[in-house]
Amino acid sequence: METELSRIGLTGLAVMGQNLALNIAEKGFPISVYNRTTAKVDETVARAKAEGDLPLRGFHDPHSFVLSLQKPRVIILLVKAGPAVDQTIATLAPLLDRGDCLVDGGNEWYENTERRAEAMAARGLLYLGMGVSGGEEGARRGPSLMPGGAAPAYALLEDVLLRTAAQVPGSGPCVTFVGPGGAGHFVKMVHNGIEYGDMQLIAEAYDLLRTVGGLSNPDLHRVFSDWNRGELLSFLVEITAEIFLVNDDLSPGDHLVDRVLDKTGMKGTGKWTVQQAAELSVAAPTIAAALDARFLSALKEDRVAAAAVFPPAAAAAGRPDKEKLVDDVRQALYAAKVCSYAQGMNILKAKSKEKGWGLRMGEMARIWKGGCIIRAKFLDRIERAYERDAELGSLLLDSEFAQEMAEREAAWRRVVCLAVNAGVGVPGMAASLAYFDTFRRARLPANLVQAQRDYFGAHTYERTDRPGNFHTEWSKIAAERSLL
Amino acid sequence: METELSRIGLTGLAVMGQNLALNIAEKGFPISVYNRTTAKVDETVARAKAEGDLPLRGFHDPHSFVLSLQKPRVIILLVKAGPAVDQTIATLAPLLDRGDCLVDGGNEWYENTERRAEAMAARGLLYLGMGVSGGEEGARRGPSLMPGGAAPAYALLEDVLLRTAAQVPGSGPCVTFVGPGGAGHFVKMVHNGIEYGDMQLIAEAYDLLRTVGGLSNPDLHRVFSDWNRGELLSFLVEITAEIFLVNDDLSPGDHLVDRVLDKTGMKGTGKWTVQQAAELSVAAPTIAAALDARFLSALKEDRVAAAAVFPPAAAAAGRPDKEKLVDDVRQALYAAKVCSYAQGMNILKAKSKEKGWGLRMGEMARIWKGGCIIRAKFLDRIERAYERDAELGSLLLDSEFAQEMAEREAAWRRVVCLAVNAGVGVPGMAASLAYFDTFRRARLPANLVQAQRDYFGAHTYERTDRPGNFHTEWSKIAAERSLL
Repeated sequence: METELSRIGLTGLAVMGQNLALNIAEKGFPISVYNRTTAKVDETVARAKAEGDLPLRGFHDPHSFVLSLQKPRVIILLVKAGPAVDQTIATLAPLLDRGDCLVDGGNEWYENTERRAEAMAARGLLYLGMGVSGGEEGARRGPSLMPGGAAPAYALLEDVLLRTAAQVPGSGPCVTFVGPGGAGHFVKMVHNGIEYGDMQLIAEAYDLLRTVGGLSNPDLHRVFSDWNRGELLSFLVEITAEIFLVNDDLSPGDHLVDRVLDKTGMKGTGKWTVQQAAELSVAAPTIAAALDARFLSALKEDRVAAAAVFPPAAAAAGRPDKEKLVDDVRQALYAAKVCSYAQGMNILKAKSKEKGWGLRMGEMARIWKGGCIIRAKFLDRIERAYERDAELGSLLLDSEFAQEMAEREAAWRRVVCLAVNAGVGVPGMAASLAYFDTFRRARLPANLVQAQRDYFGAHTYERTDRPGNFHTEWSKIAAERSLL
Repeated sequence: METELSRIGLTGLAVMGQNLALNIAEKGFPISVYNRTTAKVDETVARAKAEGDLPLRGFHDPHSFVLSLQKPRVIILLVKAGPAVDQTIATLAPLLDRGDCLVDGGNEWYENTERRAEAMAARGLLYLGMGVSGGEEGARRGPSLMPGGAAPAYALLEDVLLRTAAQVPGSGPCVTFVGPGGAGHFVKMVHNGIEYGDMQLIAEAYDLLRTVGGLSNPDLHRVFSDWNRGELLSFLVEITAEIFLVNDDLSPGDHLVDRVLDKTGMKGTGKWTVQQAAELSVAAPTIAAALDARFLSALKEDRVAAAAVFPPAAAAAGRPDKEKLVDDVRQALYAAKVCSYAQGMNILKAKSKEKGWGLRMGEMARIWKGGCIIRAKFLDRIERAYERDAELGSLLLDSEFAQEMAEREAAWRRVVCLAVNAGVGVPGMAASLAYFDTFRRARLPANLVQAQRDYFGAHTYERTDRPGNFHTEWSKIAAERSLL
């Protein structure tokens, strides 16, 4: 008796792995699954049965798991980034044959992926690092997929990925071959950094509307639902609206959001994005502000102590007009978000140049339009901007975005000033605005900084009116002038 | 015939090395110097003769250089950070005996220092990583020194360093044994990050006074000179005042500062500081804003293009009162600077904890009071704050600083709003203010971010009213509520 071989395998059956396996099976690709803790295997098999008798087979040992796969074998790993990936590779690689392929679907640091791809290649095995975004729901219904590595490896499972990814009408499946090496994981990392920025900017909008505008949770539900019908239409705005609907079971009559502790966790990709931006000489202050806000949120005790020392700024004379405030905050949120994406895309561009990855920026925006956490109508605009100019230096220089920014500039400035005067920190919106005002400045005060550097460190300077590097004995000349 | 052996050796005779060697000799310690490019050796010997017949001997080969030193030998390296240090070690180490010591005085990445210290220890040699700040002038007259590594190594040259360092009346020499491992270079790195912040904040003050206030260069000279007599008394404010005095030889009648191109260079320590802050989960937005401003300054062509797309914000109705503006900007500069130092000190504190370095925070402030680029009256206050509480969680929580911040808060908010309305980016001042307003907030909107994370990633949340980790099916509950 011979069982038919599975099209593909998947190991690592936590939430993401289970759901992605079921998704693949549902799209008609027979799949084998394996997990070290075998209860997870049985759980997945039971779900496959319950969710439509899907073509999914479970295995309790790696050997029979591998033998159950068509050759060349393709196995997706969805285990925790770091040592667990090395362990899984150590288990599976000896069981594979030349030309088989492993695909790491976790949030791995791209250099680890490149290191592993090299080690695998030395054994005649293929390797992909694939970003998977969309959380539990996305994995099950259709995530955004960011595979990178060797092109022949991608070819081995392209048919599966095209069907498994989220499908955006008129735009196709949310997957593309991102690029060589660790490009897939790098793009996913920046996606997550952008996600940090989006979440922080939404939190600031919430804070202003609640603290300054006095909006209730039902008000906030209505505002975010309304915003989700316009230019801000996105997964994160949608779920924010929903969050304000949820009551607290443990303290009846209250909304749960008010009982959630104001400490935000994190898992590393936001930090890496900020560190890579610095490494690449790319300014990314909005994403950094979002990361910093998470760091500061953790210092709850210090914050409570500081709040006692520094009482809130005196309330402005009377509350601002609610409707006007909501409209201004919407515009500020949008403008700040454009700056955040401009930063994220420029990180990708700089890395692509450094590594020769040939990232197609418009394609990156396209595959984020569905499935993933930052999916938004807004990404259409980014895709179009790069269609107009694939080498665009900044989203801010695109004609469509430039017009949108100009239209929203006044409201954005009103909101940041309001926040400054109310003592409500809006680090993301303010960082975006300072970024905008620095970027759109033909002449910055950087001349003074460079003069200082030349003064104390003889670092030399360039001039505005002729080429070359110059050094001046500032101290000596100033001393002579003082004597006149 | 026997020549007396030198107390100490120094190799790497670029600007910093030459001046430090002459300084050491002038303090009465006979010194031998060596450089691969031997012209530098002769140049240094000539200077030693010209500058007071100082006890300095030059050598054209490493062997006779090493043999000219008292045992245990101590050799200071002042070569470019990175491979040049490894090359210099490779040249010298084979010529040394057990117990001899090398001291890297460059701006080295602290992990390289730790790696080299281990390699040296394996050969029975001692190693120190020593931050040296003060530029050319500081090296010659008395720098701030930040030696770290093995305590017995420090003991070998403590007498030399105590005399060579800058001397601050009532406060002693600007040197202390910083801590083990790479602590010295790490502290120097953060010193430089703080220096980036100081320079950026001064540049923003300059920009506001010039662009919004309409102050001329002679006005600016007077303002910064005046500031340098008060709470802002510091090397960087002093040299800024001097810079506005310098005329341009190449375009008579103009001030040189106006001809300096607005592009700021950098050498890596600022970038490392920002990356380490992220690594240590410490918010350092002001230092990061300074780094980003340098990155953006480099994009001159894009900025000129953006300036054409986004014309400057409409000028405010009439200019603000000059005297009032100068006074407000002074206060904003001071308050923003306090936040920047709070960030820098917290990076040091976090690293010290992680590595078990036992850094004495007050001592770090003390050794920066003279000799170095960030030397300032202000550091007295930081020293005192850590004397009051060695474990202080933030400078902002110190009673003296808290009072100063409260007094300057209103002016600071006025300045940031003025800048926002004028479209003059003040990324450092605004980042400091957002940092302050986030840190002094007992309740942040981080509850919403954590609710979002639990919604899409089942990351769980804590509650304000009871311990434990909770997960909610937000989507399901919201959908049910929508049906009601």
